[in-house]
Amino acid sequence: MPVAVFASATDDPAQWLPALRKAMPALEVRVWPEIGDPAEIDYAIVWKPPAGMLAGLPNLKVIYSLGAGIDAMLLDPTLPAGVPLVRMVDLSLTEGMIEYVAEQVLAIHRQARTYREHQAARRWQQHDQPLARDVTVGILGLGTLGGAVARALKGLNFGVAGWSRSPKAVEGVEGFAGAAQLDAFLARSQILVCLLPLTAETEDILDARLFAALPQGAWVVNAGRGPQLVDADLIAALDSGHLAGAVLDVFRTEPLPADHPFWAHPKIVLTPHIAASNNAHYATLRLAEQVARFERGEPMDDVVDRSRGY
Amino acid sequence: MPVAVFASATDDPAQWLPALRKAMPALEVRVWPEIGDPAEIDYAIVWKPPAGMLAGLPNLKVIYSLGAGIDAMLLDPTLPAGVPLVRMVDLSLTEGMIEYVAEQVLAIHRQARTYREHQAARRWQQHDQPLARDVTVGILGLGTLGGAVARALKGLNFGVAGWSRSPKAVEGVEGFAGAAQLDAFLARSQILVCLLPLTAETEDILDARLFAALPQGAWVVNAGRGPQLVDADLIAALDSGHLAGAVLDVFRTEPLPADHPFWAHPKIVLTPHIAASNNAHYATLRLAEQVARFERGEPMDDVVDRSRGY
Repeated sequence: MPVAVFASATDDPAQWLPALRKAMPALEVRVWPEIGDPAEIDYAIVWKPPAGMLAGLPNLKVIYSLGAGIDAMLLDPTLPAGVPLVRMVDLSLTEGMIEYVAEQVLAIHRQARTYREHQAARRWQQHDQPLARDVTVGILGLGTLGGAVARALKGLNFGVAGWSRSPKAVEGVEGFAGAAQLDAFLARSQILVCLLPLTAETEDILDARLFAALPQGAWVVNAGRGPQLVDADLIAALDSGHLAGAVLDVFRTEPLPADHPFWAHPKIVLTPHIAASNNAHYATLRLAEQVARFERGEPMDDVVDRSRGY
Repeated sequence: MPVAVFASATDDPAQWLPALRKAMPALEVRVWPEIGDPAEIDYAIVWKPPAGMLAGLPNLKVIYSLGAGIDAMLLDPTLPAGVPLVRMVDLSLTEGMIEYVAEQVLAIHRQARTYREHQAARRWQQHDQPLARDVTVGILGLGTLGGAVARALKGLNFGVAGWSRSPKAVEGVEGFAGAAQLDAFLARSQILVCLLPLTAETEDILDARLFAALPQGAWVVNAGRGPQLVDADLIAALDSGHLAGAVLDVFRTEPLPADHPFWAHPKIVLTPHIAASNNAHYATLRLAEQVARFERGEPMDDVVDRSRGY
């Protein structure tokens, strides 16, 4: 019987173990740190595991992350180099992200804040409203999540452009790739949505230079990672009037400190990292599928290329 | 050359005439009341025309409404009985309604108001979030607009149920029809969206009895017509806690009077009849298509059945 260790800084084993047992009855799951003989562990199912933990498992075959963002784990220099590391991109993460981005993009496009202020003032006033088909949303990052979000926005009739490091084709999406095409992509993006993974190349990418390349009056939605945004540059671009607003779900420090200027900025909508999270039910179904592929000797999806960083 | 009269209580001819001329160069358009010889008028392109106006056009062949809701026009007893009356359901109306309903349903589902209050209080707190696929939205009215909205919500992964007077099949939508199935439909609807036309049968349909048949904690979105809602019954169902909230875009009296209790009700989101409106560009393209069908002797879409009232 294969053996897995479950170790998460934030997920409650009491919620995950029944789901794991139901999805994989032939797998024995031990909860860190009560793991018995480390040499018996085949799989690690982890989220932000303690540094050095994985290096102590000599026969580890696969590391399954419970999240899509594995940037924090790659910072551990003892992370076993020869063991495949698999990101979790399950239905609940993908659909949660579709819902969050569609919600925020529609609220921006349909002037929700303006109408809320009008209601508070008992003011009946209609504003010009373009159709979604006459607006372009730019998706920064066209991976599994970005591609799914792009398709959902197309389904709501938005014009959609997408940028990725290497060229990717998504039907109906105007594609841009690489550093050379970034500015042309930004110039088209009236609402920019960041869904990039965090790597050395994407850290600080949302900076004054990038904001200046967006059209006057653009909005920025960051559902990628906090360190991709230069906080002071965003505030300057909002205060100068070049950007109309920003929606932020991720931050350099989480929880966001109570004295951070983002909380009360009139042009910032802030949510506490809720765009997408793995649901124990759907995530374990995805995990079972990936484990079964591994055990049959088939390739798994979402295996991290550590040289790229995602 | 065929001749049309343009008469609208709310649309500016200066905006519509250039669009009409561009879409139909072979049509002469005269603006009410400067119409010359009434006997020369073939088509009326109207929105809330003056009572009796249409009866004064002896050779009228078709009445084209600039809106989808023709309830007000049917109240004019002099409306010529033998002339086809065509509702306007164009791309801008359909897509605008898709955007509005998707925006409001997502904001409800994703707890937008809660997170807005948290931001104002600088509170970092995550709440349980079901997936759209585990929530059912009920669409009351599965016509052109309701069917399009149902498909868009399916595309966002919501469970969707639909109710219509006579059975209608929309792929992936659980269909209910007629008075006998209304309560079963309501019991499934965690978010109820009204897109019904206004008729004698649908007036006051959103009343205490209907609200009681919805599940505890349901939301109601009215993007149909104001007189379909019994205002006092909605307030009672919200205040009792049975309904969690309501989003209203249409009202018995518009503009909504400044002293109406809806404005400041903490569980009501109110917008000033902005869900969907005809855009001169897209509406005239649709009109040109319908006029061309008529002139070729082909059946037109969206011809009103006056006995049904829509």
